[in-house]
Amino acid sequence: MLGTILHAPRDVRCEEVAEPKIQHSTDAIIRLSATCVCGSDLWPYRGLNEVTQPMHMGHEYCGIVVEIGNAVTTVKPGQFVVGSFCISDNTCPHCRFGFQSSCEQREFMTGAQATFARVPLADGTLVATAEMPPDDLIPSLLAASDVLGTGWYAADAARVQPGSTVVVVGDGAVGLMGVLAARQMGAARIIAMSRHKTRQDLALDYGATDIVAERGDAGVARIKDRTRRIGADSVLECVGTKESMAQALQCARPGSMIGYVGVPHGVQFDGQQLFFAQVGMLGGPAPVRRFLPHLIDLVLSRRINPGKVFDLELPLADVAEGYRAMDERRAIKTLLRV
Amino acid sequence: MLGTILHAPRDVRCEEVAEPKIQHSTDAIIRLSATCVCGSDLWPYRGLNEVTQPMHMGHEYCGIVVEIGNAVTTVKPGQFVVGSFCISDNTCPHCRFGFQSSCEQREFMTGAQATFARVPLADGTLVATAEMPPDDLIPSLLAASDVLGTGWYAADAARVQPGSTVVVVGDGAVGLMGVLAARQMGAARIIAMSRHKTRQDLALDYGATDIVAERGDAGVARIKDRTRRIGADSVLECVGTKESMAQALQCARPGSMIGYVGVPHGVQFDGQQLFFAQVGMLGGPAPVRRFLPHLIDLVLSRRINPGKVFDLELPLADVAEGYRAMDERRAIKTLLRV
Repeated sequence: MLGTILHAPRDVRCEEVAEPKIQHSTDAIIRLSATCVCGSDLWPYRGLNEVTQPMHMGHEYCGIVVEIGNAVTTVKPGQFVVGSFCISDNTCPHCRFGFQSSCEQREFMTGAQATFARVPLADGTLVATAEMPPDDLIPSLLAASDVLGTGWYAADAARVQPGSTVVVVGDGAVGLMGVLAARQMGAARIIAMSRHKTRQDLALDYGATDIVAERGDAGVARIKDRTRRIGADSVLECVGTKESMAQALQCARPGSMIGYVGVPHGVQFDGQQLFFAQVGMLGGPAPVRRFLPHLIDLVLSRRINPGKVFDLELPLADVAEGYRAMDERRAIKTLLRV
Repeated sequence: MLGTILHAPRDVRCEEVAEPKIQHSTDAIIRLSATCVCGSDLWPYRGLNEVTQPMHMGHEYCGIVVEIGNAVTTVKPGQFVVGSFCISDNTCPHCRFGFQSSCEQREFMTGAQATFARVPLADGTLVATAEMPPDDLIPSLLAASDVLGTGWYAADAARVQPGSTVVVVGDGAVGLMGVLAARQMGAARIIAMSRHKTRQDLALDYGATDIVAERGDAGVARIKDRTRRIGADSVLECVGTKESMAQALQCARPGSMIGYVGVPHGVQFDGQQLFFAQVGMLGGPAPVRRFLPHLIDLVLSRRINPGKVFDLELPLADVAEGYRAMDERRAIKTLLRV
């Protein structure tokens, strides 16, 4: 079958690889309906995370179950499933607390930019749909696997409420999904910070009420202007750099929450500064599994269309171009048809 | 009148000072019924905060209004009042959001270890009781002014829920009030970290279900033992040192919240570590004013007895001994009768 291997920074190839096999009785094998390239795939692609050996890429997936291990009971061959990028048993205390991304048996999915993929802990990780979904909904169901669930978690962690004023820092796929989530949660004002016309347009389409193109001090000043000098009730930090986190902190009003979902790189917080800013924070890898049933339902009933975040669609064989387009910011997010 | 002046580290004196006067039309002058020494008063007393000029000490207070400025409408002479250590207008957007400690007009109270005190922004800051409270409730009403309200905020910020498992780091007056608050909020397990017998006893009296005397790694191990390896749903950090914050972080389960109310001294957070721990945080100076009406009601109906936290009572003239006793940890908290 075809699979995607990162051999070294910027050397990503679609090539013949061995088909995955059931390794544990709790595994399932799925045939991918579609997969995609994640912003986080660019960290090793750009050499910012070390590549010590060939890496099987891809952690976002939906598709049809083709085989299950002996212990799997909740999904069966022939069913369409969506799973989280975080593998979880969905029964441990952390899962039951709604934080499946800290599951006692947590693994991170790999090898999903391929024809077939092995999903460990299938009962806990996968959610099956009642029927085979129409083909045009595949991109949106795929988005639920990571970026939609992650943007949703950012809004949930930032405690977006009906009527809230929300700032979204980051106009990548996750930030745009954060806009969508805030809208679904009833936010009254959603200010998207974005400098790119196509992303601004998509943010507006997903429910942003304001666009702020400025960054740094000018960005903060603009947010203050737009919020009667108060700041935001909720801030979604969807980047993970020092600059983006500083932006988030300065846009947040006292008593607000920042939901941060970009993996922090080089970010430090000063305790006393956070204390007197009186800004709350909750972040981490998104517990997508908590939200999946609801998100799948929103997609299947066509109340949301997260799939629009894929602005480039390629066959799996052209995965290298998919990475390049995202690296050069020509594409927000690349969908790979399998 | 008598007032308390810190002239230099460890040189605190009760001496004759000028009576306060109305300076702004929004001020009130109160005659103190009682006042007390705060753990935070020990920072300058110990020379850990610089003392550049004589400081009028004291920010916890309750008493009887003796004079009001022209603009004051909600309290009047003769009424018994309790106020927060944070002066607030209670009308600005931050106050209306429940964060009066970040009021646009915020000031910190000073000069309350005295016979009389001036309270700025009296309408926003003071809460009057319907009747003159009985004398035996004065200590508890005084506690509401800071330590009770601060412990309550720690529990609120840590989102203590009915049935929660709570860890309280710090067995000072605020930590003990955190135990009381967690109990009132319906926590099922309240683990107080304390090495001192009298404080352990008081914690148990206030509703702690477990005492953990160990600190550091041994303390974390003990908390894990007591929580089936899961950690706490809510952690109240009531100290503010690097060690106490590390303790709080390591006792907190993924998805939990830490409410931190000890002013952080030398505390830094690593973004990536916080991210993967998936621990939420909210701290800051407590918006006591938000909780005051409820806390006063709980005291007046004798459902709580926070006044027991005062284990030393002295006349104001002996304030220096009150500081010494707390500095040497002979007393948890000193009440000063005026």
